[in-house]
Amino acid sequence: MMRSGASAAHPGWRRIAPEWRLSRLERRDAAPEGWVPATVPGAVQLDWARAHRLGDPAFGENFRAYDGLEDFHWLYSARVPEVALEGGEQLVFACGGVDYACEVRLGGRAVLAHEGLFSGFDVDLSGCPAGTQLEILVLPAPKRAGARADRSQASDSCKPAVSYGWDWHPRLIPLGLWSAADFVVRPAAHLGHVDFAYALSADLSRADITVSAEGPAPLKGWRLLDAEDREVAGAGGARASLDRPRLWWTHDHGEPYLYTLEVTAQGGDILRRRVGFRRVRLVMAEGAWADHEGFPKSRSLPPVTVELNGRVIFAKGSNWVSADIFPGRMTAATLGPLVRLAKEANLNLLRSWGGGVVNPEPFFDACDELGLLVWQEFPLACNNYPDEPAYLRVLDQESRSIIRRLRQHPCLAIWGGGNELFNFWSGMTDQSLALRLLNRNCYDLDPSTPFMPTAPLEGMGHGDYRFRDGMGREVYEIFQKASNTAYSEFGCPGPSPADYLATFIPEAELWPPRPGASWEAHHAFGAWEADPESWLLPSTQEHYFGPARDLAEFVRRGDWLQGAGYQAIFEEARRQKPRCSMALNWCLNEPWPTAANNSIVNWPARPKPAYLAVQAACRPVLASARFAKFQWAAGETFRAEIWILNDAALDLPAGEVEVVLAAGGSAERLLLWSHPGASAGRNLAGPEVRVVLPASKAGEFELVLRAGPGDAWGSRYRLSLRP
Amino acid sequence: MMRSGASAAHPGWRRIAPEWRLSRLERRDAAPEGWVPATVPGAVQLDWARAHRLGDPAFGENFRAYDGLEDFHWLYSARVPEVALEGGEQLVFACGGVDYACEVRLGGRAVLAHEGLFSGFDVDLSGCPAGTQLEILVLPAPKRAGARADRSQASDSCKPAVSYGWDWHPRLIPLGLWSAADFVVRPAAHLGHVDFAYALSADLSRADITVSAEGPAPLKGWRLLDAEDREVAGAGGARASLDRPRLWWTHDHGEPYLYTLEVTAQGGDILRRRVGFRRVRLVMAEGAWADHEGFPKSRSLPPVTVELNGRVIFAKGSNWVSADIFPGRMTAATLGPLVRLAKEANLNLLRSWGGGVVNPEPFFDACDELGLLVWQEFPLACNNYPDEPAYLRVLDQESRSIIRRLRQHPCLAIWGGGNELFNFWSGMTDQSLALRLLNRNCYDLDPSTPFMPTAPLEGMGHGDYRFRDGMGREVYEIFQKASNTAYSEFGCPGPSPADYLATFIPEAELWPPRPGASWEAHHAFGAWEADPESWLLPSTQEHYFGPARDLAEFVRRGDWLQGAGYQAIFEEARRQKPRCSMALNWCLNEPWPTAANNSIVNWPARPKPAYLAVQAACRPVLASARFAKFQWAAGETFRAEIWILNDAALDLPAGEVEVVLAAGGSAERLLLWSHPGASAGRNLAGPEVRVVLPASKAGEFELVLRAGPGDAWGSRYRLSLRP
Repeated sequence: MMRSGASAAHPGWRRIAPEWRLSRLERRDAAPEGWVPATVPGAVQLDWARAHRLGDPAFGENFRAYDGLEDFHWLYSARVPEVALEGGEQLVFACGGVDYACEVRLGGRAVLAHEGLFSGFDVDLSGCPAGTQLEILVLPAPKRAGARADRSQASDSCKPAVSYGWDWHPRLIPLGLWSAADFVVRPAAHLGHVDFAYALSADLSRADITVSAEGPAPLKGWRLLDAEDREVAGAGGARASLDRPRLWWTHDHGEPYLYTLEVTAQGGDILRRRVGFRRVRLVMAEGAWADHEGFPKSRSLPPVTVELNGRVIFAKGSNWVSADIFPGRMTAATLGPLVRLAKEANLNLLRSWGGGVVNPEPFFDACDELGLLVWQEFPLACNNYPDEPAYLRVLDQESRSIIRRLRQHPCLAIWGGGNELFNFWSGMTDQSLALRLLNRNCYDLDPSTPFMPTAPLEGMGHGDYRFRDGMGREVYEIFQKASNTAYSEFGCPGPSPADYLATFIPEAELWPPRPGASWEAHHAFGAWEADPESWLLPSTQEHYFGPARDLAEFVRRGDWLQGAGYQAIFEEARRQKPRCSMALNWCLNEPWPTAANNSIVNWPARPKPAYLAVQAACRPVLASARFAKFQWAAGETFRAEIWILNDAALDLPAGEVEVVLAAGGSAERLLLWSHPGASAGRNLAGPEVRVVLPASKAGEFELVLRAGPGDAWGSRYRLSLRP
Repeated sequence: MMRSGASAAHPGWRRIAPEWRLSRLERRDAAPEGWVPATVPGAVQLDWARAHRLGDPAFGENFRAYDGLEDFHWLYSARVPEVALEGGEQLVFACGGVDYACEVRLGGRAVLAHEGLFSGFDVDLSGCPAGTQLEILVLPAPKRAGARADRSQASDSCKPAVSYGWDWHPRLIPLGLWSAADFVVRPAAHLGHVDFAYALSADLSRADITVSAEGPAPLKGWRLLDAEDREVAGAGGARASLDRPRLWWTHDHGEPYLYTLEVTAQGGDILRRRVGFRRVRLVMAEGAWADHEGFPKSRSLPPVTVELNGRVIFAKGSNWVSADIFPGRMTAATLGPLVRLAKEANLNLLRSWGGGVVNPEPFFDACDELGLLVWQEFPLACNNYPDEPAYLRVLDQESRSIIRRLRQHPCLAIWGGGNELFNFWSGMTDQSLALRLLNRNCYDLDPSTPFMPTAPLEGMGHGDYRFRDGMGREVYEIFQKASNTAYSEFGCPGPSPADYLATFIPEAELWPPRPGASWEAHHAFGAWEADPESWLLPSTQEHYFGPARDLAEFVRRGDWLQGAGYQAIFEEARRQKPRCSMALNWCLNEPWPTAANNSIVNWPARPKPAYLAVQAACRPVLASARFAKFQWAAGETFRAEIWILNDAALDLPAGEVEVVLAAGGSAERLLLWSHPGASAGRNLAGPEVRVVLPASKAGEFELVLRAGPGDAWGSRYRLSLRP
């Protein structure tokens, strides 16, 4: 059945979904030997699996049956529809993106060759009779010659490296039409790429707006409508100004206010888009210019403090990874709930990690609407991308396409060259041409948005990714001793909930967890090279609690550690303000069901228990405790510094924090701290409580801080207590 | 008298030097009230001083009389000459550069406005009758509104900051026609900018050459001639290849081999230029990728090791500063001898510092011919250059002009954004648009040459600039404790020779040196804000030797400290290879006579005694001693590690180093080290000598190392000995 409809952005356009079919070819020039129905957007693997009943790739080890499908040629085929064109209309094939390289044929004749999934293309069908065969030959996935069967196969292409295998992603390399690929009826004189650009005055009181449209139709004019659909600015030409624009803010610092832009072409074609006004800078942290004593002198650290609309904000966030092993399944329905969960966890920034796919529009639309900043990396991660013309040409094309699209979104806060490129496991340097090219393109196309060649840079920190490292250091010690400017990755893994595990691990394997088979396939063992027990880390549990009796107990204990770890790290990073101005855990989400992972939300959008700990630790204001370790003994003196962490833009009034020790069913008030209040955005260090811990059969105790109206700023720390 | 002649680069062109006159205007639109003869290239101050007998600015405090001349408008005037044009010829006014902004008028009518001294312009005089008045109105020097009367006045222009006052440069801000500005007769169909570009194959065995010429005449063809004038490559079009090109090397690693390029336009216009083939990269030092223990992890240090034609070399060099307070006086005759001195001091790299003028062609021609690499910075230094469109527009124009010119030179090794921009006294960051623009332009126009946004970067070190710092630490301690990847600036000041001092310090002031008047004007006191005694530093001398009896003794002692300091630092930096791969002292030269300075060559090209110490310490191979301090006491145990420092590309055979202590007229052999030889480019650590120092009335002793054929690798360390 043919879907058909109007485009939201272009009300005057009609989209006609082709009826696609797909054939697997043994070689490029082979004749198709059979066809299966194809769903677009999608992936060749999904269509093939559906027709050949390969089984849900997310269950058990089913994904292994998909191995090698990426090495075939695949032919999509559809027929040009019978369309009654009105005067001045044209019919085109508009392809949003092919993963990864393709040749387009019309009536058997090659009309286009294309490489790169982040730039789409149009094929004019004028004069092409209805019924003409439209074919898209998808080439095998790129694999660098001579590379091992891992991420390094992706190191000379712009194909996201993650699907070649990662410590939380199966090796399953999708191919195919991953984005909308429709026949479109539109005015021949239509609006091509429309660009909305503005310059804010230094005091943010005026926006000088420039709207430009690339042909074929010349721009007639544009209007800007506020949220109540009132026209507040507009022009017959390209430029106009808006006085006192309502600024776009993150949800925790204001309202993510959006306007509607309506652009009209000569001839009547119309485009509508939501836009917003913000100024984002990376600035030096307070005190960061202070001189280092003595000579020889090096440089000061690179700035990583986010200033939004003139206000320094603490970036609390998470690393966003591909939300699905098949990017063709990423839609508003799958992306929206994840972005909403990030917002509800009190996060204000997502680092869209360079190993994965640059998200489609619904992700950025959701971040615009919900008020989250996005740090968008280009598709380079943990590889040494070469100074080779063939690679640089595709990177140039892909990055320009990405920048031109995303610079329209007020949520876009930072451009990042890619992940961990200046570390030995990647091997790139400041001189790598790929990164100089990306800096160039960002400067040319979006100079007012900050650019970072990679993360981490000097002063920033990545890791650790365990509650307790190989030397027995816990997150408490690791992060209290660190003094980074930004913790742009840190992880604390936890198992997935027991009922969730049962949906993808065969029942016979469920207990006890062990290496091999489904647990390992879903990253519970042997995932991260630095630790063979990752990400389940059973020895860490046993160190504190001994062996678990069953899966439920095992999972409860794992959740406890993950939650306590994330609570500790987020709060410690905030305590280190202003030197530190960013804390982003690794990671928010995951692309398929993991048995254990650093994520706080299971695929597709199921919060894990640790999500609640992150949510609590990232409230704009909270009472917080800093202590040395997780497990204590009865009779030991427990000490904790009491703090108020304040990222809110408002001064906090004087008030009280009550500190209570709860153990074995009884609660003892340790302290009532009458604090003087904290000025906007400033933390407040308070007293240190000291108490000799009582014995308790429960094996745990809780430090309870009560603070704020209705205890809104209260916090609880559940810790282990040995008899 | 009118000079006239052919151009070396363009044998078919004729240059006719105008007879310039100059008038000082009280305001922009004032009528000239009098004229003085003008010399071009030059500066308005020089012409004015000549006519008004202001006195040599280099003597005493004469320069103060020049103060404020930069705030006037100045009008240059000449008349279009009577020229018999042959068929197809045109007459133009070709201006190499105006310092700093100007308006060009022809017959009283403004025809051009220009800002920036590094980009020239042509004015077509076709149809302009002989005798027509050609005027160049030079605008007052740029001074940032509201800035103090120091370098910060230059912080929103591309005018080199140094002339606004530096610790070794008087405040004297030149203006005027600083470059050739001639009438030129040439074919109307002539060669515009000609670009010689090449790509070397990975194994350097082939050069794929592209020659392009910007109009008006189309390229007819080109030939490449070797040093014996044999044609080795050529093409009727743009491209041809050269097999086994002879590579250009620094003088210490090979021959700086140059070819001659001859380009012919359709119509016959010809251009000749010397060219060379080299590949320069900045690579990670050996061992630099090694992991840092534990988490959180930051990045690895940026690469600063020079690799030339596939060979890692240790960069021994110096910081080049403006060779004259008037850039219009920089010619082959003044620049050539300085470059030759740098070569003869065994230096292989000059950092052309961003505070000064980007040198004219003779400097780069000399570096090409003599085999020195150039790290060229753009004109930004110690200021916060703004993210403002007006500034960025001029920086864009100027940097493009600089890159297009200098990328033709094989000596050009590194592009640098500017000096110390990421330190608190500048205040720029990785996000500053000026530096992102420079990366963009270098990437677009010369991607194969490394780019550094500034120096120092992480790992690199600048300073100290004293033999002994305020806490009593000497260069021995400071640099033995440091572990930088590059010492791209370090200084050790010394007084100028007594006979030289007498040429610019009035006799009555000569002894004793004191703050105020000529000594201070020439930087002996109050020069560097960190030390009021800089650069004469008399207290340092007195600390070791007590008061000097006369100027000669004072200067001898100062020379001793400067030489010993530079010897110690260069050798220590070389010992730290491979982690360290660069040592550049501050500075090679100076723009006018200084009374005391870190330079090793006095203006215009007079080596100071410390020059010989640098020359010895930078020999490719030498025996070297590492010891703790400068002054010792009789009876004290002197210890020194003996090393062989080897930057040569050849393996050193086994041999001997004899270590001798010379004191009070007698010499004692301490040690004969039979060393096993050192492989190419590798240092060799040897034994430690220990000796109880004898008493000596001379107040000094010398550690003498004898090594190599004819003692060519021998070294001497003259140290102070207290009774």
